[in-house]
Amino acid sequence: MVRTASASGTAGPTLAVVAREAGVSVPTASKVVNGREDVAPETRRRVTEALDRLGYVRRPRFDASKPPRLVDLVVHSLDSSRSGAVLRGVEEAAHEAGLDLVVSAALSRTRGGRPQRGWLDKLTVRGSAGALFNLAELTTSQYAWLEQHRIPFVMIDPVVEPPPEVMSVGSADWQGGLMATEHLLTLGHQRIAVITGPKRKMCSSARVAGYRSALASAGIAPPAEYVRDGGFDESVAHRRTHELLALPEPPTAVFVCSDRMALGVYRALAERGVRIPHDVSVVGFDDLPESRWTTPALTTMRQPLAEMAATALRMLVRMMDGERPEGARTELSTRLVQRASTASP
Amino acid sequence: MVRTASASGTAGPTLAVVAREAGVSVPTASKVVNGREDVAPETRRRVTEALDRLGYVRRPRFDASKPPRLVDLVVHSLDSSRSGAVLRGVEEAAHEAGLDLVVSAALSRTRGGRPQRGWLDKLTVRGSAGALFNLAELTTSQYAWLEQHRIPFVMIDPVVEPPPEVMSVGSADWQGGLMATEHLLTLGHQRIAVITGPKRKMCSSARVAGYRSALASAGIAPPAEYVRDGGFDESVAHRRTHELLALPEPPTAVFVCSDRMALGVYRALAERGVRIPHDVSVVGFDDLPESRWTTPALTTMRQPLAEMAATALRMLVRMMDGERPEGARTELSTRLVQRASTASP
Repeated sequence: MVRTASASGTAGPTLAVVAREAGVSVPTASKVVNGREDVAPETRRRVTEALDRLGYVRRPRFDASKPPRLVDLVVHSLDSSRSGAVLRGVEEAAHEAGLDLVVSAALSRTRGGRPQRGWLDKLTVRGSAGALFNLAELTTSQYAWLEQHRIPFVMIDPVVEPPPEVMSVGSADWQGGLMATEHLLTLGHQRIAVITGPKRKMCSSARVAGYRSALASAGIAPPAEYVRDGGFDESVAHRRTHELLALPEPPTAVFVCSDRMALGVYRALAERGVRIPHDVSVVGFDDLPESRWTTPALTTMRQPLAEMAATALRMLVRMMDGERPEGARTELSTRLVQRASTASP
Repeated sequence: MVRTASASGTAGPTLAVVAREAGVSVPTASKVVNGREDVAPETRRRVTEALDRLGYVRRPRFDASKPPRLVDLVVHSLDSSRSGAVLRGVEEAAHEAGLDLVVSAALSRTRGGRPQRGWLDKLTVRGSAGALFNLAELTTSQYAWLEQHRIPFVMIDPVVEPPPEVMSVGSADWQGGLMATEHLLTLGHQRIAVITGPKRKMCSSARVAGYRSALASAGIAPPAEYVRDGGFDESVAHRRTHELLALPEPPTAVFVCSDRMALGVYRALAERGVRIPHDVSVVGFDDLPESRWTTPALTTMRQPLAEMAATALRMLVRMMDGERPEGARTELSTRLVQRASTASP
């Protein structure tokens, strides 16, 4: 099981020697070595035995002047359905571009809120051709480090606005917040609350701004207590919902800025015997697969996560080729996915 | 943005030259280059400017005699919560072992049911130190190819039983099926149906065997129409549930062999106005995050997916070190996670 020759490039006997030993043609021996199916079992056996006898180790098609191109995807977590969609989009686009994808949850291994030392080093040690960061918040020195080491990189949904020269891909969060709220307005709701993510997060503040714009266009000024920070956290959203229901004039609809938080909202509403959508309508944000699992199924704003991720990878490839794609931030549009959690008041 | 020196190993000026140019000490210049935070902004600016002026590109700590060690994880899909858990387990264990993880959904890119040519080649071209396959069903020639190229590999939850010498990690599916059914028996159920995965899949047939064993121990012989193949498919499970409810003597409890299929079961029960767990109890299998999202939350058998994946990676590391771990198949135990979908009949 110790690999020697295939790693170092020194090969044992050639395929021709193997073929002679097995009494087959070189193409046939090649088929066996390459794992092709169209070889008779007896022939395969003969070739395999010859390979074993001769200690043949296939010489990797490794061209030192053209090292295999690796790109890095650096994320916080690998087991959320959100990161799953991002991973799928990046992997597919990388495969199309002939790149191999190294995945790391380095952003989760932080010390005092900062990624551990060494995670950037790895990019150079390995000779990474470029990097994508998902939901990252890099420090000034980390940005400088990447620039210094000439490692092209693209941010997917950066947490805070990156420096102006940094390329990023996100979704149209403001438009999403606007459309979610307009959907509720169209249904006839007037008392519409919002459960937000943290204010400092760009995506969250944009969604809330969209909510405010939609209400303003309809001539509605939401009372301050209708805007509640759920911190993108399910249990906080659960608490906020109880607070909303305890208001003298509770809302008839809630725009929840993430599907995950919507679960907490559902739970709180169920605890109070409030029916969705008869008593209160709920709109989420993300369209994670889970939004189909709730009862009733969640109406939500679809973020095209896999498409965002694929766009980022393709942008990265252009940068690796020396191009400078235009426009620092690319936004893909969101769309309303209407399910069963919204109705007229 | 074109990387040259850092890829080829030819470096520009040394750090000492940069430090002199910036009028700082070498350790300070090093701090800036390494992205450390503990540098005064003005100092950082001076060093960065010097780096730019001199065209310094950090020499990667690349030792040709000790190439970076990459391991491959080859999967079907990257955006299921099941694969998310596997990915997390592998990535964490790889990080601990100082390995970088290349992820590929090569198993999804099949031609006529077989992975496309070239996906195995990549492992040698890149000099992969080893590979993990999740939910894979390799052909005889692919196994032979891996063996031939001396690439150590471990299967995570192989679909069918691999050749005896192949290392694999799975969960104790038989025991899981047994415990799920025993849970329903303990609650007092006698008419217990099962919605299975495909018979040919090892994990599925083991779960059903566990179900049968538990019933046999209780002196119950389930009627043939209580055992229905849902093919690990949500919509098939939905149909099977309708069939079960249409029986002259419908079951009071259903053991569903995957959480995903349980969603179809929930939907069918809701369509018939059958309440969970009052009228029918449901037990799933997997404990995917989604099982918390259903109403009522799903009682299920937890498969320790991340732990299975980490175990496979550690096993692979031992094989890479020339060890031959004992026992071809390792099974991690499952456990009952009791939520709100089961009750006495």
